[in-house]
Amino acid sequence: MKPILMLILDGVPDRPIRGTTPLKSAFTPNLDELAKRGVSGIMDPIAPGIRPGSDTAHLSLLGYDPRRFYPGRGPFEAAGVGIYVGENDVALRCNFATLKNGIVLDRRAGRIRDAVELEKAINEAVDLDVDFIFKSSTGHRAVLVLKGGDTKLSPKISDTDVKVGEGSKVSKALERSEVAERTAMIVNDFVRRSEEILRDHSLNEERMRSGKLPANTILLRGAGSVPKLKTMREKYGIKPAIIAGIRLIQGVGRICGMDLIPTEGATGRMDTNVRNKLGNAVSLLRDYDFVLVNIKGADEAGHDGDFEAKRDFIERIDESLSVLTGLDDAILAITADHSTPCSVKGHSADPVPVTLVGEPVRTDEVNEYDEFSAPKGGLNRIRGLDLMPSLLDLAGKAEKFGA
Amino acid sequence: MKPILMLILDGVPDRPIRGTTPLKSAFTPNLDELAKRGVSGIMDPIAPGIRPGSDTAHLSLLGYDPRRFYPGRGPFEAAGVGIYVGENDVALRCNFATLKNGIVLDRRAGRIRDAVELEKAINEAVDLDVDFIFKSSTGHRAVLVLKGGDTKLSPKISDTDVKVGEGSKVSKALERSEVAERTAMIVNDFVRRSEEILRDHSLNEERMRSGKLPANTILLRGAGSVPKLKTMREKYGIKPAIIAGIRLIQGVGRICGMDLIPTEGATGRMDTNVRNKLGNAVSLLRDYDFVLVNIKGADEAGHDGDFEAKRDFIERIDESLSVLTGLDDAILAITADHSTPCSVKGHSADPVPVTLVGEPVRTDEVNEYDEFSAPKGGLNRIRGLDLMPSLLDLAGKAEKFGA
Repeated sequence: MKPILMLILDGVPDRPIRGTTPLKSAFTPNLDELAKRGVSGIMDPIAPGIRPGSDTAHLSLLGYDPRRFYPGRGPFEAAGVGIYVGENDVALRCNFATLKNGIVLDRRAGRIRDAVELEKAINEAVDLDVDFIFKSSTGHRAVLVLKGGDTKLSPKISDTDVKVGEGSKVSKALERSEVAERTAMIVNDFVRRSEEILRDHSLNEERMRSGKLPANTILLRGAGSVPKLKTMREKYGIKPAIIAGIRLIQGVGRICGMDLIPTEGATGRMDTNVRNKLGNAVSLLRDYDFVLVNIKGADEAGHDGDFEAKRDFIERIDESLSVLTGLDDAILAITADHSTPCSVKGHSADPVPVTLVGEPVRTDEVNEYDEFSAPKGGLNRIRGLDLMPSLLDLAGKAEKFGA
Repeated sequence: MKPILMLILDGVPDRPIRGTTPLKSAFTPNLDELAKRGVSGIMDPIAPGIRPGSDTAHLSLLGYDPRRFYPGRGPFEAAGVGIYVGENDVALRCNFATLKNGIVLDRRAGRIRDAVELEKAINEAVDLDVDFIFKSSTGHRAVLVLKGGDTKLSPKISDTDVKVGEGSKVSKALERSEVAERTAMIVNDFVRRSEEILRDHSLNEERMRSGKLPANTILLRGAGSVPKLKTMREKYGIKPAIIAGIRLIQGVGRICGMDLIPTEGATGRMDTNVRNKLGNAVSLLRDYDFVLVNIKGADEAGHDGDFEAKRDFIERIDESLSVLTGLDDAILAITADHSTPCSVKGHSADPVPVTLVGEPVRTDEVNEYDEFSAPKGGLNRIRGLDLMPSLLDLAGKAEKFGA
């Protein structure tokens, strides 16, 4: 089979502001050249009108239906930080946050940069009814995995996460079952005991002295059990790798059985080293059948509503795409997991452009890569779940169904 | 209702070689005129990225979801040679083949032309634990139907078919059940006893004397039980007919309850009489509500990887399409069951062009019938299962769903 490179320009597509978008207004000769050589279309990452998360969209683009398999964000975050989640366990995504008089003042504890000391203190001093792993991730983020041991825990519990200015919440069972009630109780226990540790922690005292917000509580959400997925190797008979700067996407890759390739300078932010990631991907195609590269920066700019920063980052991506020239024997897909319009400052359900490049594709007349040209292309409109089978067929790896 | 003619240009669509395809480079004034008068689009015979067989694709185009109904190739082949397959029976597709020292030397026994004598000898001399019907089809092909009688047989058994140069195989049960194990044993018994008959058969001695490969074994595959399908008459309330040169497609038609119309010179090969088939179809529209015509030749050229032969055959089809002029009161669909790219020498999952012609269609600006023009048409991208309902609606035969 031909090797496949799937390039996910995370959150790049947008909605028009005064008739244009960051992608359309950016100078992108390399993307446009790829559009010219390939076949384009638009793609609903999940389905029309469904606003995807990054995790559900990536699952879909890898050919796993998130409407059947999605277990909540927790397990992906846990997989991303390398925690094995057993089938009796429940994983939750956590934020260090700031509480004042029972009201959430900041959901990110003043965007605390390094919470490893707090993580340690909690792991040492907190004692629960079950074993647990608490691990800080990037910035204010952390993951909690409650280990069920021989007894199953339940992910059917409510988030404790609230908006700024709202009072703190406790987790409740979302179904009438002893096991869900027990799990919610353990989660609330974890929060109460962690707050005791955090309240008097020297790092927080230091932060307050220097005018920073203390990380004095933990908000939890996205409780989930790990889904039993066929690996991509089992599902497609291919050897897959993933290059992604952020834990959540790494976790999706890990749960789908992809090799996680660390890349120097891959930060998942706008300062990420795009050229390194792409160069690395190209060399991986010698050993792997399938490589997914996620480039996250534009999504961040979209969340910030920063049109210019988003456009500039897209131009940086484009410059780095020159490393793809000469990739003549591969099948290349350039697309996005979702739109992150600056006007929305979040994900939207708008379809994303998709361009496939490679010797067997039926080229069309589209010669720009953007939200307005893509719908005129030869692919018309497909869904995220269609992408992986289409790529495998172009790569010569699809099984025939029938005679 | 208006009568419907569905014209299946089997395997005609292709992938570009130096920017063009057999269809695009062929001189096809009639196809282009139809595209100009009609509305075009692309169609995934089953779903994007799913590589269709001819049987699964035809089922889909007739409105039967092969992902729910497909029973393997055997029953369609059996139906194609006119064998009734009961619900306790198992049908298998067979090849006469050449074995030497236990190794398969040729999967088609030197492309043996007529195996009726061998069929007879096997039917006379082989005795199994169940009744059976063994019938030779075209060339090296044959069909075996094992009659369960009052006891059900199981299609969950493995093929005995192997590649050239591999050792012969026995069939094994594919599930832990007594009935599957019994069925596999009967199949192996059939092979062993047939080999005894074939070994000393005068026809094979004669073949060897004249330097031809003997048909000294039988390879079996595609075990299936007959699916219980509503006939097209039950499903749609229409009277349907099919014109097809090859048994497999005739079998699909028969299982869907279509009248099988024999046509002189319809061979299923490149020497087929296209004009006869089309002329016959046009006259049938006086008596039938729906006529499917399958024209197979281009598929054969695609399997051979012969670009020029494929292009030339497409031009022959086009010439014959003149018999469709004057078909003003019918709904006409011109499409394919799958692509058979010369570069693949097999089926691919690429979408196929589809053009609908008739007084009620919303015409578009497409005025060529090929892989590159079709995506620009008014139909955009549909699926095989959408075709039949769309045609019935244009013909004035769709039921209203709702008030």
